[in-house]
Amino acid sequence: MITVSIIGSGNVAQHLILAFENANSISLLQVLARDKNKVISLVDAKKIITQYDQLQEADLYIISVSDDVIEEVATQIPFQNKLVVHTSGSIPMTALSSHNRQGVFYPLQTFSKGKSIDFKSVPICIESNADEDLHLIEKVAKTLSEHVYSLNSEQRKALHVAAVFVNNFTNHLYQIGADLCQKQNLPFAILKPLIKETAEKVMTLSPTEAQTGPAKRHDHLTIASHLALLEDENQKEIYTLLTKSIQNHD
Amino acid sequence: MITVSIIGSGNVAQHLILAFENANSISLLQVLARDKNKVISLVDAKKIITQYDQLQEADLYIISVSDDVIEEVATQIPFQNKLVVHTSGSIPMTALSSHNRQGVFYPLQTFSKGKSIDFKSVPICIESNADEDLHLIEKVAKTLSEHVYSLNSEQRKALHVAAVFVNNFTNHLYQIGADLCQKQNLPFAILKPLIKETAEKVMTLSPTEAQTGPAKRHDHLTIASHLALLEDENQKEIYTLLTKSIQNHD
Repeated sequence: MITVSIIGSGNVAQHLILAFENANSISLLQVLARDKNKVISLVDAKKIITQYDQLQEADLYIISVSDDVIEEVATQIPFQNKLVVHTSGSIPMTALSSHNRQGVFYPLQTFSKGKSIDFKSVPICIESNADEDLHLIEKVAKTLSEHVYSLNSEQRKALHVAAVFVNNFTNHLYQIGADLCQKQNLPFAILKPLIKETAEKVMTLSPTEAQTGPAKRHDHLTIASHLALLEDENQKEIYTLLTKSIQNHD
Repeated sequence: MITVSIIGSGNVAQHLILAFENANSISLLQVLARDKNKVISLVDAKKIITQYDQLQEADLYIISVSDDVIEEVATQIPFQNKLVVHTSGSIPMTALSSHNRQGVFYPLQTFSKGKSIDFKSVPICIESNADEDLHLIEKVAKTLSEHVYSLNSEQRKALHVAAVFVNNFTNHLYQIGADLCQKQNLPFAILKPLIKETAEKVMTLSPTEAQTGPAKRHDHLTIASHLALLEDENQKEIYTLLTKSIQNHD
């Protein structure tokens, strides 16, 4: 049985804890959380610790904390030559302390409080310098997910940027859609089927095949009338830039 | 039994034909198509006509053609005082010939060739100046969809702009995501679960509640490292503008 300990108690850590608690061939040994209350409902209280010197020996330590404290947290693990991974998309593997064996375990998904995720469908991007370590990380990842990818730090960083485009920026476009609806006393719900189908479409078509609309059609009359309708300068600017970008992509 | 005839043979017309052919309380009387081949697989050949003077009397004529020819098509209907609607998001109702009673029947969805849609979930936005006409249009719309909204032309136009943001522009962000993956020899499939969950999230949370990422967190280090990674000037510009827009939305 592979033993895993998690350091962290945020969104990603919480979803990982749940996923490991439901996994058969992995034993979640300990959860190190500064604030016990954030994880008390997810895992047996006896497994929760708050101090680094309470950490026991495990096959794998997963550091799941904010990017800016990963480096510091890694140095506090009171062991040497143990396998330690982080869960970040943008931090290089080598940011982890070289006292231990380094690796990455990056689940590419947007996790929210109170919204459960089927971990089986979450891509997990793994990395390690040593074949044996990669093999162990892969084994753990495959216990949780059907989609495990071995990436180097450069690929992972590019993927993280791509994720910002398809998640953070896309969600902001939803927000602009909601604002435009609200201004006309329309419920946001009216846009939901379109939002869903837009995502659904690229499950089978490529985004290039799926692209439609006035920009793609070079329909200057409609574009001009849309820009005339937009009152917010920022929205106008986004409309203009994305229209140009669609047209340059042809 | 309400009789409906459709003028047009494009994507929207084709999906409407299919939906009406499956509807119980509506009789699809005729389909006027310049190119018979585009609709021959969807409807009884006897119903397909190619000339305006072959049009019979119907309770409702639905003009489903490109925005730029709606006005011209409307003038060619060889009747007076009949109820005629168009399916466009951006054209005012009054663009239709005043020889007939005017209306709008705008299905808010992205239709693709060869990808079927469950019309029950497609919002249909209707409009008319006369109560009786609105009532008939509503009856027809409710036969196809569970989501029928009565909007004025101004609301519909704003909704069309919102649809450009959440569909056309969102799809373009998917395209950029795909480009970034391709550059690093990563399959686009790796982004699909994230794309799906991003859409899924705003079915229950508001986009403002769902917003995450370096822009939202004002994580300047990550933003700078992402901009350093992007080589395409256009992608840099989009990243910068959308980051600023997320931060101004706080």
